[in-house]
Amino acid sequence: MNAHIITIGDEILIGQTLNTNAAYIGSRLIELSIDITKTSVVGDKETQILNEFKECFHNNDLVIVTGGLGPTHDDITLNCVVKFFNTELVLNEDVLKDVKTIFTKRGRQLTKLNESQALVPKIADVIRNKLGTAPGIWIEKNNKIFVVMPGVPFEMQEMMSSYVMPNLKEKLGQQEFVTKRLILQTTGIPESFLFERLGSMDELLNGAEMAFLPSQFGVKLRITVKDKSEDAVNNRLTEIEQKIRNKVGRFVFAKGEETLEEVVGRLLKERELSISLAESCTGGNIANLLTNISGSSNYLERGVVCYSNGSKVEMLQVNEDVLQKYGAVSSEVALQMSKGIKSISGTDIGLSITGILGPTGATPGKPVGLVYISLCDIKTSIVKKFLFGEDRLLNKQRATQAALDMIRKHILGIQQDD
Amino acid sequence: MNAHIITIGDEILIGQTLNTNAAYIGSRLIELSIDITKTSVVGDKETQILNEFKECFHNNDLVIVTGGLGPTHDDITLNCVVKFFNTELVLNEDVLKDVKTIFTKRGRQLTKLNESQALVPKIADVIRNKLGTAPGIWIEKNNKIFVVMPGVPFEMQEMMSSYVMPNLKEKLGQQEFVTKRLILQTTGIPESFLFERLGSMDELLNGAEMAFLPSQFGVKLRITVKDKSEDAVNNRLTEIEQKIRNKVGRFVFAKGEETLEEVVGRLLKERELSISLAESCTGGNIANLLTNISGSSNYLERGVVCYSNGSKVEMLQVNEDVLQKYGAVSSEVALQMSKGIKSISGTDIGLSITGILGPTGATPGKPVGLVYISLCDIKTSIVKKFLFGEDRLLNKQRATQAALDMIRKHILGIQQDD
Repeated sequence: MNAHIITIGDEILIGQTLNTNAAYIGSRLIELSIDITKTSVVGDKETQILNEFKECFHNNDLVIVTGGLGPTHDDITLNCVVKFFNTELVLNEDVLKDVKTIFTKRGRQLTKLNESQALVPKIADVIRNKLGTAPGIWIEKNNKIFVVMPGVPFEMQEMMSSYVMPNLKEKLGQQEFVTKRLILQTTGIPESFLFERLGSMDELLNGAEMAFLPSQFGVKLRITVKDKSEDAVNNRLTEIEQKIRNKVGRFVFAKGEETLEEVVGRLLKERELSISLAESCTGGNIANLLTNISGSSNYLERGVVCYSNGSKVEMLQVNEDVLQKYGAVSSEVALQMSKGIKSISGTDIGLSITGILGPTGATPGKPVGLVYISLCDIKTSIVKKFLFGEDRLLNKQRATQAALDMIRKHILGIQQDD
Repeated sequence: MNAHIITIGDEILIGQTLNTNAAYIGSRLIELSIDITKTSVVGDKETQILNEFKECFHNNDLVIVTGGLGPTHDDITLNCVVKFFNTELVLNEDVLKDVKTIFTKRGRQLTKLNESQALVPKIADVIRNKLGTAPGIWIEKNNKIFVVMPGVPFEMQEMMSSYVMPNLKEKLGQQEFVTKRLILQTTGIPESFLFERLGSMDELLNGAEMAFLPSQFGVKLRITVKDKSEDAVNNRLTEIEQKIRNKVGRFVFAKGEETLEEVVGRLLKERELSISLAESCTGGNIANLLTNISGSSNYLERGVVCYSNGSKVEMLQVNEDVLQKYGAVSSEVALQMSKGIKSISGTDIGLSITGILGPTGATPGKPVGLVYISLCDIKTSIVKKFLFGEDRLLNKQRATQAALDMIRKHILGIQQDD
């Protein structure tokens, strides 16, 4: 099956919005080994859109379109679909009910404009929108598939996951080769070091492919194996995973797309451990990420954002003299902060972080990027020093990731040093 | 002049890399009022690339291509250019010198592979690469322009700025029209309500164009005006902005791309106000966003993430009986939290937030999405009730945005109700 992804929207043409939708859809279609021939972006212009529909549907088995399904005057995609397939719009009662439900919930009255979002092409199957008002549509014609979804990323992603992918999988049925991907996520080791420690790629992969995908969170390894059966593919992937874990296992924090905070949350929950956080430079980001996880109230008891020196003393019982002598960004103060938050909250683990994220704030001997993270439990207390970069936001993300990884390693009994 | 942007690279098709290059180039071309008809992404396949070259060059005055200029076997763009223009590769001495210089700088030996990067199409003008090894090329034929640049973003951006943009500007000569855009960001009002309150688009815009760009943060309005002079364009934009502000002004939190937290940070700083935060459901996200801003220590004194009921009582002096009687998610407790944090920290403003982000946690009468936000200063204290959706992460982002907007409206003396 080959496919073309069309993204509709002036704002993407002129570079105001990044085309994350095409990237997301591409990465999903690849899971099914669908061959993506091309992707394109067109503006909100009827002639352009119709020409693109015509050419893409002619040359591909599958066309996926996003954008232009809203209630305003720029949103012309549905009219283009109606023209292209020579069909008409009809009112769909289920969709109307969905739209009414969303508005009632928000405590707002439905307008005629919103009711019009319940009109769908007669020949289409409706993809219900659980997170917004515009439904998606799935059309089959001449053994080809034409899908249209809203441009709002979280709405489109939900439709891809709950409707499009399962239906595509069913259509594809039995395939000649099986392709499978394995993701291993690492953190705390630079790409070049990781590459060197993994040694000979030929020996490691034996015909498989591996991509290194670095980011500020660490390096993601994406291994792809293609073979004649599901069993053969699984065996080869297991073997490669084992080799990688033997060489760099302690840097691997997750298999698949689980985030580091999800891993840490899971570990805390499984071992029935509670944690409290004392954040200075990360400003609440560590607590923020942990509380993204449903059920985090099982382990996150409290956090403080002790941004000022006064609040470090008042909320955490940090000693004023120690603060004066060593400064807020020091291992001594970091240690007092982690012990303080643990003592006050009574949790199993206390974690603290203090640093200089920049661009201002550096002093002699204490450059931008300097961060101390401290962790203590009933038995031990540790402090680790980090030196990140120059960019404030990247430093915050990296410091947050390092703190979470420190918790992970502590729980799993893995050494903290490189 | 109309243009098409081609991005070459499998990794973009399969969604592994976001197409930031097309977005960048698009945003630069718009500065010259060049009309971007379409952008497309093709894989590293010769037939695909040649077909794309043919169609795009036929339909446009300008084609800009990035990707596939590296030294490895997947990099076939240059060979495609040679085939398409029926020309040949010749050694360019300047480029060879550039490549040698870079390698000497890196302390590395030049390989034959790298030397081959000094081969350029005979009919092309060379765009020197100051930051990498692959040169760009500029070809003029039949009154049209064909540009190819490396896919490495910072290398391409340098070439755009130092060579492509100046040369395009010269080609365009005196421009007949000036195009300018205005962004107004709104929050706290759904897209359809905003559309209705703005009334007749014809009356409002008088020939200008306006796009609605909704997200979980609110609705961005993008107004585009094209006229004969800079003054005419500016006058029309000012007039439209004024009309919009007259109708929906209190929902407009920023002009341009400033985020809501940047706006709030700026207001707090300008008026020398300090703030402290008591966050339950948002888990530190409000403090996190405010501390993304350099210099936020000027106004953010402290925050607490009082995730457990115990921590609400211990850290904020919330009355245990009130907590028992009304529950943690109530206007009564929200009010005690905001007064508590203000009192403890001594800041000008105290803000609190408590709610049920889901998916679990609902109780009779208190559904998922229910959030109370309270703000108090020396004169007043207010509580506002919100009902968001079903999705935990979206609820967190929307709740955070609502809290920041409450601070903004309070500082500016704008009414809090819809």
